[in-house]
Amino acid sequence: MSAKILVIHGPNLNLLGTREPEVYGPVTLEEINRQLQAYAAEKSVEVRTFQSNHEGAIIDAIHQAVDWADGVVINPGAYTHYSCAIRDAIAAVGLPTVEVHLSNVYAREGFRHLSVIAPVCLGQIAGFGWHSYVLGLEALLMKLGAFA
Amino acid sequence: MSAKILVIHGPNLNLLGTREPEVYGPVTLEEINRQLQAYAAEKSVEVRTFQSNHEGAIIDAIHQAVDWADGVVINPGAYTHYSCAIRDAIAAVGLPTVEVHLSNVYAREGFRHLSVIAPVCLGQIAGFGWHSYVLGLEALLMKLGAFA
Amino acid sequence: MSAKILVIHGPNLNLLGTREPEVYGPVTLEEINRQLQAYAAEKSVEVRTFQSNHEGAIIDAIHQAVDWADGVVINPGAYTHYSCAIRDAIAAVGLPTVEVHLSNVYAREGFRHLSVIAPVCLGQIAGFGWHSYVLGLEALLMKLGAFA
Amino acid sequence: MSAKILVIHGPNLNLLGTREPEVYGPVTLEEINRQLQAYAAEKSVEVRTFQSNHEGAIIDAIHQAVDWADGVVINPGAYTHYSCAIRDAIAAVGLPTVEVHLSNVYAREGFRHLSVIAPVCLGQIAGFGWHSYVLGLEALLMKLGAFA
Amino acid sequence: MSAKILVIHGPNLNLLGTREPEVYGPVTLEEINRQLQAYAAEKSVEVRTFQSNHEGAIIDAIHQAVDWADGVVINPGAYTHYSCAIRDAIAAVGLPTVEVHLSNVYAREGFRHLSVIAPVCLGQIAGFGWHSYVLGLEALLMKLGAFA
Amino acid sequence: MSAKILVIHGPNLNLLGTREPEVYGPVTLEEINRQLQAYAAEKSVEVRTFQSNHEGAIIDAIHQAVDWADGVVINPGAYTHYSCAIRDAIAAVGLPTVEVHLSNVYAREGFRHLSVIAPVCLGQIAGFGWHSYVLGLEALLMKLGAFA
Amino acid sequence: MSAKILVIHGPNLNLLGTREPEVYGPVTLEEINRQLQAYAAEKSVEVRTFQSNHEGAIIDAIHQAVDWADGVVINPGAYTHYSCAIRDAIAAVGLPTVEVHLSNVYAREGFRHLSVIAPVCLGQIAGFGWHSYVLGLEALLMKLGAFA
Amino acid sequence: MSAKILVIHGPNLNLLGTREPEVYGPVTLEEINRQLQAYAAEKSVEVRTFQSNHEGAIIDAIHQAVDWADGVVINPGAYTHYSCAIRDAIAAVGLPTVEVHLSNVYAREGFRHLSVIAPVCLGQIAGFGWHSYVLGLEALLMKLGAFA
Amino acid sequence: MSAKILVIHGPNLNLLGTREPEVYGPVTLEEINRQLQAYAAEKSVEVRTFQSNHEGAIIDAIHQAVDWADGVVINPGAYTHYSCAIRDAIAAVGLPTVEVHLSNVYAREGFRHLSVIAPVCLGQIAGFGWHSYVLGLEALLMKLGAFA
Amino acid sequence: MSAKILVIHGPNLNLLGTREPEVYGPVTLEEINRQLQAYAAEKSVEVRTFQSNHEGAIIDAIHQAVDWADGVVINPGAYTHYSCAIRDAIAAVGLPTVEVHLSNVYAREGFRHLSVIAPVCLGQIAGFGWHSYVLGLEALLMKLGAFA
Amino acid sequence: MSAKILVIHGPNLNLLGTREPEVYGPVTLEEINRQLQAYAAEKSVEVRTFQSNHEGAIIDAIHQAVDWADGVVINPGAYTHYSCAIRDAIAAVGLPTVEVHLSNVYAREGFRHLSVIAPVCLGQIAGFGWHSYVLGLEALLMKLGAFA
Amino acid sequence: MSAKILVIHGPNLNLLGTREPEVYGPVTLEEINRQLQAYAAEKSVEVRTFQSNHEGAIIDAIHQAVDWADGVVINPGAYTHYSCAIRDAIAAVGLPTVEVHLSNVYAREGFRHLSVIAPVCLGQIAGFGWHSYVLGLEALLMKLGAFA
Repeated sequence: MSAKILVIHGPNLNLLGTREPEVYGPVTLEEINRQLQAYAAEKSVEVRTFQSNHEGAIIDAIHQAVDWADGVVINPGAYTHYSCAIRDAIAAVGLPTVEVHLSNVYAREGFRHLSVIAPVCLGQIAGFGWHSYVLGLEALLMKLGAFA
Repeated sequence: MSAKILVIHGPNLNLLGTREPEVYGPVTLEEINRQLQAYAAEKSVEVRTFQSNHEGAIIDAIHQAVDWADGVVINPGAYTHYSCAIRDAIAAVGLPTVEVHLSNVYAREGFRHLSVIAPVCLGQIAGFGWHSYVLGLEALLMKLGAFA
Repeated sequence: MSAKILVIHGPNLNLLGTREPEVYGPVTLEEINRQLQAYAAEKSVEVRTFQSNHEGAIIDAIHQAVDWADGVVINPGAYTHYSCAIRDAIAAVGLPTVEVHLSNVYAREGFRHLSVIAPVCLGQIAGFGWHSYVLGLEALLMKLGAFA
Repeated sequence: MSAKILVIHGPNLNLLGTREPEVYGPVTLEEINRQLQAYAAEKSVEVRTFQSNHEGAIIDAIHQAVDWADGVVINPGAYTHYSCAIRDAIAAVGLPTVEVHLSNVYAREGFRHLSVIAPVCLGQIAGFGWHSYVLGLEALLMKLGAFA
Repeated sequence: MSAKILVIHGPNLNLLGTREPEVYGPVTLEEINRQLQAYAAEKSVEVRTFQSNHEGAIIDAIHQAVDWADGVVINPGAYTHYSCAIRDAIAAVGLPTVEVHLSNVYAREGFRHLSVIAPVCLGQIAGFGWHSYVLGLEALLMKLGAFA
Repeated sequence: MSAKILVIHGPNLNLLGTREPEVYGPVTLEEINRQLQAYAAEKSVEVRTFQSNHEGAIIDAIHQAVDWADGVVINPGAYTHYSCAIRDAIAAVGLPTVEVHLSNVYAREGFRHLSVIAPVCLGQIAGFGWHSYVLGLEALLMKLGAFA
Repeated sequence: MSAKILVIHGPNLNLLGTREPEVYGPVTLEEINRQLQAYAAEKSVEVRTFQSNHEGAIIDAIHQAVDWADGVVINPGAYTHYSCAIRDAIAAVGLPTVEVHLSNVYAREGFRHLSVIAPVCLGQIAGFGWHSYVLGLEALLMKLGAFA
Repeated sequence: MSAKILVIHGPNLNLLGTREPEVYGPVTLEEINRQLQAYAAEKSVEVRTFQSNHEGAIIDAIHQAVDWADGVVINPGAYTHYSCAIRDAIAAVGLPTVEVHLSNVYAREGFRHLSVIAPVCLGQIAGFGWHSYVLGLEALLMKLGAFA
Repeated sequence: MSAKILVIHGPNLNLLGTREPEVYGPVTLEEINRQLQAYAAEKSVEVRTFQSNHEGAIIDAIHQAVDWADGVVINPGAYTHYSCAIRDAIAAVGLPTVEVHLSNVYAREGFRHLSVIAPVCLGQIAGFGWHSYVLGLEALLMKLGAFA
Repeated sequence: MSAKILVIHGPNLNLLGTREPEVYGPVTLEEINRQLQAYAAEKSVEVRTFQSNHEGAIIDAIHQAVDWADGVVINPGAYTHYSCAIRDAIAAVGLPTVEVHLSNVYAREGFRHLSVIAPVCLGQIAGFGWHSYVLGLEALLMKLGAFA
Repeated sequence: MSAKILVIHGPNLNLLGTREPEVYGPVTLEEINRQLQAYAAEKSVEVRTFQSNHEGAIIDAIHQAVDWADGVVINPGAYTHYSCAIRDAIAAVGLPTVEVHLSNVYAREGFRHLSVIAPVCLGQIAGFGWHSYVLGLEALLMKLGAFA
Repeated sequence: MSAKILVIHGPNLNLLGTREPEVYGPVTLEEINRQLQAYAAEKSVEVRTFQSNHEGAIIDAIHQAVDWADGVVINPGAYTHYSCAIRDAIAAVGLPTVEVHLSNVYAREGFRHLSVIAPVCLGQIAGFGWHSYVLGLEALLMKLGAFA
């Protein structure tokens, strides 16, 4: 199997490891991407990563994924809580998608408990730092395998 | 009369006809634009169409319309439900604006029942597939005529 | 094609043109009905109009329409916001129905933003004065044509 | 001065004095109307009374009042809490209107605390049994005098 | 015992059996009334049935029942959810009343979960198709017997 | 009969006639009190008036009234909407009390629609300018007579 | 026909007839069970009754019923209002189930108006004392017959 | 490393694979437990599994785990949505805990979107069928390793 | 006087003194029970203590208390916030009951501010650590004395 | 130990024993103060009592207490439900404070269930008539001892 | 220009600098007033300061200001969140008013996010410690100049 | 001192002075920037201004500011009310930030009363037209000085 996966990092995640390490941990986005590539190599799948602070750019990336990817792992950052437009993009392209979060959003401010995106995803993984991405990839591969 | 109208297609509408046809119908955005141009030709008005997945780009387009357009027909897509910034753009430029939707948003999920944009428009037309655009144009022309 | 359409005017619309012209415009109900008949003649369809201030009479009219009409255009007036009974009547007879409003209800008091009727209609048109009726007829004919 | 006043008794008020006297008191509607006529004679004004359990009939009566009456005293009964159609009727005819209630609605079930009609009236009088009607007439006459 | 019972069918129930059978079943109102008369004959009680789409007419019927009936079985249809006026009518006449519904309202749209009428009834029976009426009659007779 | 009545003017009412006449009218508090004394003289009752901007002082006045007054007319001003302490004072002394308002509070901001005080009063009169006080006195005298 | 029915009595129903008779009536649970057995004998069906104050034990009983019962009549007591676990048990086993209540829950405290269980039942019967159980059995048998 | 993990299956999960496979999949609880033991063997960790429909028994099991386990994976089933007592148990014992769900709870009924338990867990994994358990174990082991 | 009192410790209280001492203090349940027995000896009353994590077991204990106890002191733990079944048990047995809490629940998470149990108790004491139990016993004895 | 305690009686408590004895009991405030002094004498502590209907005066008293008192027992009366200013006063002076209520506020009107003051107190005692004050003193002394 | 400004310090602000310095800073009210006088001297305006814990006294001060002041700077303290009476006082006198807060109220408890007073002020300044007062004065002078 | 400040103008502010002057005043953005530079020159600080209608571009600008700026003054325009992504950007970079608004948002539509951004800022200044920016700069410099 040679699945192709798009991993999307939403707004402010480019600052990872440099800011608020007590909330998001000390690992940089570059390191996370390296970990994901290592994992991908081990599993013989292709992973492409993308980061943007722009809601529209994330939507564009999801649209383009329909031409090459088998699934999406997305950490929508703060867009999780209000971007119905990203939600519609995921629903429209129909790619199996896993929503991930570094922190346990349910242990934080009330507004972070609502995800407008989760209802159109396969599922959600939250609270395990950068491991959430690895678990998200793994969950997606399991599901893709289940459809194979 | 030679009114000039800007027609704005919001996020994900570029996928029309290729995705979720059971919700949005089988017609592509390109075909809708052709229909609108045909209608414009028939009515001897000028129609320019614009699509973007970027909230900011839609705001920019509304701002620029003030220099050339007599009115706006907008399908704000998912931005309908939270983009107070697009709302303010419409209110600020003061162009007569009609909000249109392909689907009957009131027969869908609860969050789609709220439009933060409708209060600053002339009115709203929802539920008639791509005909909603034609009806929107027509409504706008009636109103512009009323002011003529 | 020789579609037959029932146009229903809800409560207080008999006062149109004589009262609160700053909200509803200066056109009387009689003039609106004349416009609708002119439009019907032009399109070679049959339009019958009905006005009542009685919720039950509106329900009765919807029930009777099932014997002769191909569709309904309804301005439910204030019943829009609470008449679940009219909603059920529309759902029960199953005739394609378009909800119309003279004013942009979304720019008025909060209680006018909720339509209990819209979810069982094809769609909704609001804010274009008496043109809303003409647009509603047109939308309905488009839809009927789509089913033909 | 020879003001003409319409007094409207809403749903279930025809049962007054015969049912639930512990809530509404022992006086019948007929007796209330007699009191109102006595008061009218004393003040040399004309009072016409009307009772109906039908929302539509109450709307019709308000519409007709515009041809002969200088003001309205209305006890909308339970329609107080949801009849936006009666509200619109009062707003549309523009006659000065006083809302009255036999019982102190604010000391009863929560749903009785909301009046959708009060915002378009001159004011509201509640809690004084059949005296509420007399006070309502008096309030209306004071206001009419103030405009004279 | 020769109890006399009024059975009220609220709005849209005249369409039973002809419309939306997937929700309300294939039985017509006429057949339900026949079943109720058969049941009444078997139990030696008198049943009179009444259907109206008019809220006011239902209130009138409840008022008149006080002169001849020992109890009421009512399916208020959509009026269940907002007719405080029917509620007040039931409370005012004081006849023991059972509220019945064909469908399980609690398995349908949220607005159908609220009954403004149930608090003034003996009880409520919902979800058993036309059997709900028979069960309602039976419940009422049990209660009337309890008072005998 | 020689009833004794306390009339309480709540916060900011000392400014009447000098401020915001478009909301509260041009009449000063002194003139209102003169009108109330004239009315009292005519009815042969005793009226004492009291104004304070202090919630505690109003409570004290209600407590002291129990020694000499037969009833209270109170315009609680803005305390209407949150002073549970004044509510408790009225309930504790048990004097029949009428709540009055100059303006139609139901036609103003949402927070003015709630009275925490009305549930423990005989009733409420709102919207008739300074006439509200006269009507309040009259209502109270009617009720006191009813108990005589 | 020889249907087998499980009747479940939820928490605190073991106290019936000994406590709060003004709410729940004077009949003991033992007497209710005797009445149900008498009714079962008359109808030639088998009824087994079960009471527990333990949410888990009620779930276990529902699970076990799947091996022998054709349907369930359940009075979930206070679990009605929050036991999503019992709801899931009923949905999971798929046995036709009728929810019953002794009292008219809609005439009691607000929290008793919500049933988290009703949406997965055939229907609900409330307010007829111990007769609610008999009516529930009857409703269930009607439905089972309808499927026969 | 030889971590010891308690896996808790909440109410109704004993029915897995036999009921509602369209929601929860065709795999039985026994098979899931076998998968977890296989995974545990591969990772050289010890896994003990426990299922109960009783809230109290789940609390007891969490309490006892403090004596032998290094962490907990829990699928609280419907208790997720209201068992503050299980929440307190997890918080009290202080063992690192992962909440898992078979289905994507965010794509189901509204009441399933709230977890009272998630705020005291490390994180939450939902939507991947029985794989959710494997991912939960893996997440827990990653975290335990992070603390080693 | 020889009053007999049941003291109930709800879920997770068996962990007292060993877990989360910063919230609940360092005293164990055993020590609290010793203090209560010492207090009971001093006052010559009989105290029996009971702890369970099972909602049903707590209900059973309340039911059994009716045979021997004069009153109940209960710390319902997390069941405070949702166990309508425990509430109904207390109301049903009718024993005077005092609700106690170790911590000041009003200074903690919002969900802890609601007690569904307090409305059927004599009163509530919260925030004084294990002293809350002693104060609860004392309050109960005062009340029992008042009835003696 | 010679602790000094301020006991504050909020609005309307000066009427105790003379008004609404069915809610607040027959004991006067003077008698309560005598009981508190007797208790103080027995415990060798100093108690000063203060009553006011003025929110500002209560705040002033709390401010002055910081110069002489070791703790406060306060029955804020109706100010409990909205006086954020008293709340801030208690938080600002930092004296350990116990909130007490004569009646069980949780068994009364909904607005009495919210205390804006309790979150900044040590704890709350409600429902034991004048004994609530004695229990409050005792609770405060226990706590002061715990800090000694 | 020689503007005259009233600066009002609301409840508990007399404790500034002596209590809760981690929230409100170490500066005393006296020092703030000195800073304001220094600023006033520099700008050649007159500033009078007033502090009270009494809502009524603050209202009185606002009323009196109308005779001498050109504007008001007010820190309403906790009255911010509920004193509709202070709001009405500001609206009634019509003096341009600036609301200031020492702390960033939007970063504190939820109830502090609502200001009932801000809607009738020119604007609001919050979060800059005692500098908020200086900024408030400056803002007011800018506005007064704009009207000059 | 030579502080460097980024001033961000959010969506639609590029239209200032040309549109809706009755809400936002007649001053253009260019003029405001000139005023800010004049102020900066006077205070010997460096101010860079940035305007964008794109949420993502504003986030990017905040990220870049961390490399050169000492603080931020931001008028987030309509993004104030929903851009959790901008909120997270401000929290992540940790630069002291002041939120400013031209109009008094608390005197406008309800949705403008909520700022999702204010909780992570130093404070908020609203209602003083373009002076709000100057006051914001001044507030920031005061705060930066406090840290120097």
